Formats: sequence, structure tokens, C-alpha cells
Amino acid sequence: MTVPYSPGLEGVVAAQTEISEVDGQNGRLIYRDGHLIQEVADRSYEEICHLLWMGRLPSAAELEAFRAHLASRRPLNQAARVALTGLPSDADPMDALRTLLSAQGAGPGCPKPDLDGAIAATAVTPTAIAAFYRRRRGEQPVEPRSDLGHAANFLYMLEGRDPDPEQVHYLETYLVLLADHGLNASTFTARVVASTGSDLWSAVVAAVGALKGPAHGGAATAAMGMIERVGGPEQAEQFVIDTLNRKERLMGFGHRVYRTYDPRARILRDLCRDANRQFYDVAFKVEETALRELLQRHPERPNATNVDYYSAGILQAAGFPKDFFATVFATSRMVGWTAHVLEYMAKDGRIIRPASQWTGPNPDQRAAVPATDSTA
Amino acid sequence: MTVPYSPGLEGVVAAQTEISEVDGQNGRLIYRDGHLIQEVADRSYEEICHLLWMGRLPSAAELEAFRAHLASRRPLNQAARVALTGLPSDADPMDALRTLLSAQGAGPGCPKPDLDGAIAATAVTPTAIAAFYRRRRGEQPVEPRSDLGHAANFLYMLEGRDPDPEQVHYLETYLVLLADHGLNASTFTARVVASTGSDLWSAVVAAVGALKGPAHGGAATAAMGMIERVGGPEQAEQFVIDTLNRKERLMGFGHRVYRTYDPRARILRDLCRDANRQFYDVAFKVEETALRELLQRHPERPNATNVDYYSAGILQAAGFPKDFFATVFATSRMVGWTAHVLEYMAKDGRIIRPASQWTGPNPDQRAAVPATDSTA
Repeated sequence: MTVPYSPGLEGVVAAQTEISEVDGQNGRLIYRDGHLIQEVADRSYEEICHLLWMGRLPSAAELEAFRAHLASRRPLNQAARVALTGLPSDADPMDALRTLLSAQGAGPGCPKPDLDGAIAATAVTPTAIAAFYRRRRGEQPVEPRSDLGHAANFLYMLEGRDPDPEQVHYLETYLVLLADHGLNASTFTARVVASTGSDLWSAVVAAVGALKGPAHGGAATAAMGMIERVGGPEQAEQFVIDTLNRKERLMGFGHRVYRTYDPRARILRDLCRDANRQFYDVAFKVEETALRELLQRHPERPNATNVDYYSAGILQAAGFPKDFFATVFATSRMVGWTAHVLEYMAKDGRIIRPASQWTGPNPDQRAAVPATDSTA
Repeated sequence: MTVPYSPGLEGVVAAQTEISEVDGQNGRLIYRDGHLIQEVADRSYEEICHLLWMGRLPSAAELEAFRAHLASRRPLNQAARVALTGLPSDADPMDALRTLLSAQGAGPGCPKPDLDGAIAATAVTPTAIAAFYRRRRGEQPVEPRSDLGHAANFLYMLEGRDPDPEQVHYLETYLVLLADHGLNASTFTARVVASTGSDLWSAVVAAVGALKGPAHGGAATAAMGMIERVGGPEQAEQFVIDTLNRKERLMGFGHRVYRTYDPRARILRDLCRDANRQFYDVAFKVEETALRELLQRHPERPNATNVDYYSAGILQAAGFPKDFFATVFATSRMVGWTAHVLEYMAKDGRIIRPASQWTGPNPDQRAAVPATDSTA
């Protein structure tokens, strides 16, 4: 069977998965084992990792052992430490993460993806990001602490001091909510890479590259840039109208799959009200105007606030500068990427090699016209 | 429209392209502007780069300027040089290439893919590979020479001496033949990464990861390993029969698209007869037996020698150890990857985000069964 070309592969089913499901029609996100996102939003990131990798939430004893295992894999190895010292300090943080993960994963041969590798990649990601964050300020990396959870230790490594519990809560909630989201572009990238029999590090390095794009992981940074340009709540309405009148795009609205309010956006919005009031006051007013204006102008289009919009406010409240937002997204999604790779290799594993359609000249036709090259 | 799940996305058209076309039914490979592969097999790699990027073969004057441009982009930058010194010397060469390209590409922001970036990535690839080749032997990198062509300079940087013209010819032929091949898994990976708006380096780093897999770029290494295990031509027939009787796979036979002899394999086979007689004598006998036995055992299956099989003999003759074969494949395919990215961004650019099918439990059903976790 040959299926006609659909740009963006919309509607093409490219995976069967039990890691997560985006039920866009009903505005639901389901995590593995049938958990609605709002039911697990207050769990720790480690519990979500256990759920997405192992298929169920851990018992208290399982969680303790699991936390210790993750914490033990946090340090950067020699290859990554050396690579860090060579990175230009003005490099995009996603380029730094891509390079440090690639260095961390450089080893002999092509090991089959396994849970231990998934744990190693997930555990080391915040360490790599924090090390580059500090390098940019001319500071030495802070070694990870194994007595802290994934989120708390991440913040600790940024500043080298005990993190604020509120900020840990903001970060942890964000990490839990963004941990997986069906077959998005970076997760699909990880699956395609693994489908050739490649190793797990190659898959996650590739996924970081895909997430870097402004249409994917770069969206929260763009949303923050927009909110900053608005100025204050009083300018919000005019800003939205002017932007739309200029036929420019508002950042943070619309999604390929959701046809209603993204449940993650709802949770982050409510959290943002307390966590980042300055951001919230502008963002809420922009959102209100945007949803009204977009409905008026394009009543046929489903339009809702996407997760990136309020993510920006939460990540700022957690202490991250806006050009690091995509790296925190990568920190969260690392569990999803690796869970999808493990699932694909266990269930299917066939090389993903779609077809292409030739739009160039036929060699037989070509012979009839004079050659254009003069080197013959 | 929703298309049913097809593992491996077989038959799903995921690109319209005029870079290259694999006409599997007729055993033809068509390069851009309608060139059959056998018509351009004696061209230089630079001419093929010009063809695949710019859409036509260059004039003599164009070629000269183009060669100079490529040659000027060969040196490793500081980030890659530093990263090199941290890599474990037993790392897989593809891991080294992935890391060095990522470091080389680390810079501010997220630049749109352009021809200059394509030239930079293609030009630096052999330099990165040769530097790691020498590091593994405890030797300093050899700086590139701009008076040599792409293939000749690659061999020069490996050993630090004027390359043998025969070996340059073997390498150049290989680089030309493997430069593009429709929508293979690594090219598709590069397209998916770029479709999020990410930069060109992220796309090619991802593609290197996909190519690393044994079902893709690792196949020539596996074929060489098999030929080495055979021993001599006298053992070939028995080896093939024993392997098939044990239901094990023979390396180098079968392809997703070709239904007849791969035209590249034919050219490499003929070249191999002179270039690597020791390899050829064993490989030819193995091939003869394999095609006969496979036809007898599975008459329904199309079966033909794939390009990786004789690639192994040619790459050995050109001077590469077998665990570097996939990096030479990457060297060649870099032009294809980047040409596909530039084409996708120019023609379409929509984010590639296929759908997934949920196979996990429904949250509504889940509520009816007792929760298994004990942490609540």
C-alpha cells in the first residue's frame, strides 16, 4: 500500500504506544497505566520516571531504591567534563546539552538500549545543563548531591546553594507535566534513530536536536520574549490586536493535537498565579484578548493556549533564564524519549524507512535535452 | 484521514524530493537533475556536492571556486579540538564523529539551515574522523591541506603523507556512490529534526546517530566481519550453507527498496576485483552461493547483494579499519543529509509530527480496578 504524501505526516500512525496518549478531542493527557495527568501532577519526577519506564508507580521501598540508582548516575564523566571546557560561552544551551550528552555517551561499540542507559541519560542531563550554566558565568561546575531529589539537585547545581522549596516545587511540577506527550517530533526522532539498531545516547542526542527548534522546545522561550515585549497588563489588549492586525503570530496558542485547553497548561496557569504574579498578570490579559480575537477572526480554527505559554512563567519562577527553557524541557522529556526507545525496541524494532516521491526529471527525458554542464 | 499503523512506515510517502530517487523495481539510482548513478560514478565528490546542493553539475570555473570554498571550511574549531582530547580512545568512531560535529556546530541561537552551513558540515567531517583515527593511535591530528580534493585530503589526514592515487580513487568512487539514496532512515531523521526549525548541525548530528545502527551504516562493518570469519574461498560455500541452516542472517543481502541488483553494488564489485583481490575472491564465492541458496530457500523473496557488501572491500582497500566504515559512509552522506534539509525547509518546512495509537488502559477503566501502588 502506498499512502499519498502528507506534509508533516499528519494522521499517519507511526507508533503503537502505552507510554502516553494525547486525547486532543477531550483535552486529556494520559500517562502509562491509564493515569490522567492531573492525577499525577503532584508526584515526584522520580515516581513519573518509574511509571513511564516500568509501567506502574513505585511502592515506597521501590521508590527509595530507584531514587538512589538515579542519583548515583548524576556525575559527568571525563569526556563530558573536557568537552565542557571547549564550548564557546555564547553557545545556545541546547547545543551545549547536545554536545555534553554525546560526549558522556561516547563508548565502545553500539550497545542495545536498556533501562540502565535510560537512567544514566536522564540522571546526567541536569548536571550537564547546570555545568554549562555556570561555565557561561565563568564559574566551576557544582558536583551533584545524592541526598537531593532530581529537581532539587538540579537547582542546587545551578547556584551551589540549598534550593528554595517553592522553586523546587515549580520545577518538579513542570518536569512531571512535560515528561511525555505522545509522538511529538523529538520522541519520533528518538524512535527513528533507535530503529536502525543504534544506541540510546545517539537517540537522545538526536532528540535534543529536534527539541531545539522554535516550533517544538523553543516555544516557551518565544512566549517569554513576547510577554516581555508587551510591557504591562495595560498594554496587553492593544499588543494582541496590533500583532494580529500585522498578520503576525502570537506565541503560545494553537497545537497540532489539542482541540481544547491543554490540561498541562491549565495546571501551569494556576500555579503561575502564585509563582510568578508579574508574568501572570500580563500573560492572563494577553491570553484573554488573544482567545477572544482569534475566535472572532478565525472561528473555524480550534484555538487554545498551549503548554509553552505558562511554562515560560513557571520556568522563570524556578530560576531559569529564558534561553535555558528548552534545556529544562529536555530534562523532563528525557524519560519519555528513553521510554519510547525501550518500548519500540521491545515491541517492534523494525527500521523506520518511509518512502519518498520523485519530483525531479526522469533520466530518459533528460537524455533528450542538451546537457547544461560544460565540464564533460 | 488516518492511516493504519505500518511498522517501519513502509509505503508511507514522507517526502517529495528531487535530490535522488531509488527506482528499486528497475535497479536504478537517479541523482538530481536526472543523472543515473553509473553516468556520474567517475565524477569527483565535489562535483556531486554541487549537483546535489545546487541542482546541476558545475562548469570548470564553478568547480574551481567551489572546491576552494569547501577546502576553506575543513579545519576543526576550538570546541571540537578540545572535545577530541576528552574522548575515550576506545569510543566507537561514530560516537566520536557525533560529538565532534556537535561541538563544531555549537554556537549562538538557532540559525536557519543554509548552503554555507551545509558546506561547513561536509568539509569538516573527514577532519573530525581523521583526528579521532590518529588520537586512537596516540598521534596528533594532521591539519588539512587545501591543495588536495576532499577524498585525497581525507586520506592525507589519516596518515600524514601523500595519499596513494589508487586509494584516492577507491575512496572517491565510494563517496560519490553513497552520497544520497532517497529517504533512508538517517536522511529522514535529518528532515524530522530540521522540521522543528532546528539548525543544520542538530540535523546532521542526529543523522550520524541514526546511521550508526547495524541495520543502516553499520552494515558494511558487519559484512567485513563475516568475510573475515569465512577464511578463504574454499570455505565459502560451506560457510553460507551452515549459516543458513542455523537460521542465521547473512550480512550484505536484501534491501527494503531494491528488487534487483543495486547499481552501486555492481560498480563497487567490479572495482573490488582489482582493488582488493583477497576480499573479492572470498566475497564473490560467498555471494554466488548465497544468492543461489537464498533463491532456493525463499523463492518468494527478492534477494540481491546490497551496497554494504562490496563497500567493505573497497573501504578496506582505501585504507580504513573496519570500525571506521560507518564514518566514511557519514562523510559521503553528509551532502545528501544537508541537501534534503535545505530542500525540506525551502519547499515545505512543516513540523513532522505523525500520530500514535494508544495501546494502554483507558483511565475510565482504570478507576474500576484497585490501584497497585502503595505510596498514595
